[in-house]
Amino acid sequence: MMIELQTEHFAGIEALHAFPAGKHAQPLPCVVFYHGFTSSKLVYSYFAVALAQAGFRVVMPDAPDHGARFQGDERLRLRRFWQILQGNLEEFSALRDALAHHELIDAGRLAVGGASMGAMTALGIMARHPEVRCVASLMGSGYFTSLARTLFPPLGVTTPEQQREFDAILAPLAQWEVSSQLARLADRPLLLWHGEEDDVVPAAESFRLQQALQDAGLDGQLTWQWEAGVRHRITPQALSATTDFFRRYL
Amino acid sequence: MMIELQTEHFAGIEALHAFPAGKHAQPLPCVVFYHGFTSSKLVYSYFAVALAQAGFRVVMPDAPDHGARFQGDERLRLRRFWQILQGNLEEFSALRDALAHHELIDAGRLAVGGASMGAMTALGIMARHPEVRCVASLMGSGYFTSLARTLFPPLGVTTPEQQREFDAILAPLAQWEVSSQLARLADRPLLLWHGEEDDVVPAAESFRLQQALQDAGLDGQLTWQWEAGVRHRITPQALSATTDFFRRYL
Repeated sequence: MMIELQTEHFAGIEALHAFPAGKHAQPLPCVVFYHGFTSSKLVYSYFAVALAQAGFRVVMPDAPDHGARFQGDERLRLRRFWQILQGNLEEFSALRDALAHHELIDAGRLAVGGASMGAMTALGIMARHPEVRCVASLMGSGYFTSLARTLFPPLGVTTPEQQREFDAILAPLAQWEVSSQLARLADRPLLLWHGEEDDVVPAAESFRLQQALQDAGLDGQLTWQWEAGVRHRITPQALSATTDFFRRYL
Repeated sequence: MMIELQTEHFAGIEALHAFPAGKHAQPLPCVVFYHGFTSSKLVYSYFAVALAQAGFRVVMPDAPDHGARFQGDERLRLRRFWQILQGNLEEFSALRDALAHHELIDAGRLAVGGASMGAMTALGIMARHPEVRCVASLMGSGYFTSLARTLFPPLGVTTPEQQREFDAILAPLAQWEVSSQLARLADRPLLLWHGEEDDVVPAAESFRLQQALQDAGLDGQLTWQWEAGVRHRITPQALSATTDFFRRYL
């Protein structure tokens, strides 16, 4: 199938927009897909290619301070992982409204996916947006508060003052955490994929969520796939699991 | 710019084919781009997106035993890295002829690029195909015979018989080695990119080639970029270095 892809703005945010050829303005089942930290929508654009080839509209926005929105200071950005994740989460409503306003979504068939920081975005959105039909999380985590101690911590903490600053940065993320919203992760189809040897986001983050859902008897709509021997990268299997998942559930 | 992308066959090989919208059949500067081992043309299709957005025709073939050509045995494939590389190298002439036959290449403006095993393919092709105008190698190596001892060796060698078998597998690759064809790597523009902390293909492989060219006074057309702190992955910087290189030289 021929697909088309172009750069566009939605709600003021630069995004890649991919779709089956000729269907730029036609309502379609639609996936908003989020890229990883310090990477870009362009480096992750193979998700747009694969999903558009499967018949979906795909919109891949720049995260704050990435791609066209990069402010030029890589060191500063490395300390702002959690604020950037928060930005992604808060911007979703405006993106969704822009897609709906342009009548690009077929009958409410809207899904969210992402990889790495993008997967954390997708899980957070699932926790608070019941209108999203299904969600794919590849090498992600929904446990923001605990993970922030080891993954790109916003600052070192040795004094009570630093602890207060750290807590103030993480506080807005609490409402998006999966730990307080487990039932919201269970009432629609969810895909978790993780490479077992992930050296950036530990696979234990996905195991933990799968286990929590299972222990609570909430895993009826959960699909999970762990790939042995794979570090922090997307394999052909991960990509086809994602495409298969949206084909089945969106 | 809107681009189009579809799956097609060239010389009987399934490939992704990307180009600026509406220019499917028009002669264009053309890049043949090769994906990495155990990955796929689809996972690497962001190179097709980025280069087509820059105005190029991009053709990304499946390597032997990958993608649509995968024969289903992953364990066997892991022992056939060097035979698969050889297949890529030998298939290039037929791909080039198919592109020329369909009049898809503008005035001989044909380039080759690749990442990881694809970069090894690109360097091998540069060594033997003077008609290729310029070449981009991302996290690759052109020193096949020595690298095969540590990177996906085709078999363990403890007996003379195994040594003969090992040598027989590597022998056909000798003619594509950069070590015996250094001048051919110097007479056209070449881009080398490598993450300095590469944990799969050591960055020393690219340093070695850059040093050899420099020591021989053959680095006049060489562009190289080493990225600090980066393992075996393509960064936004690597992707834009590739696009910039082809924009400048193709």
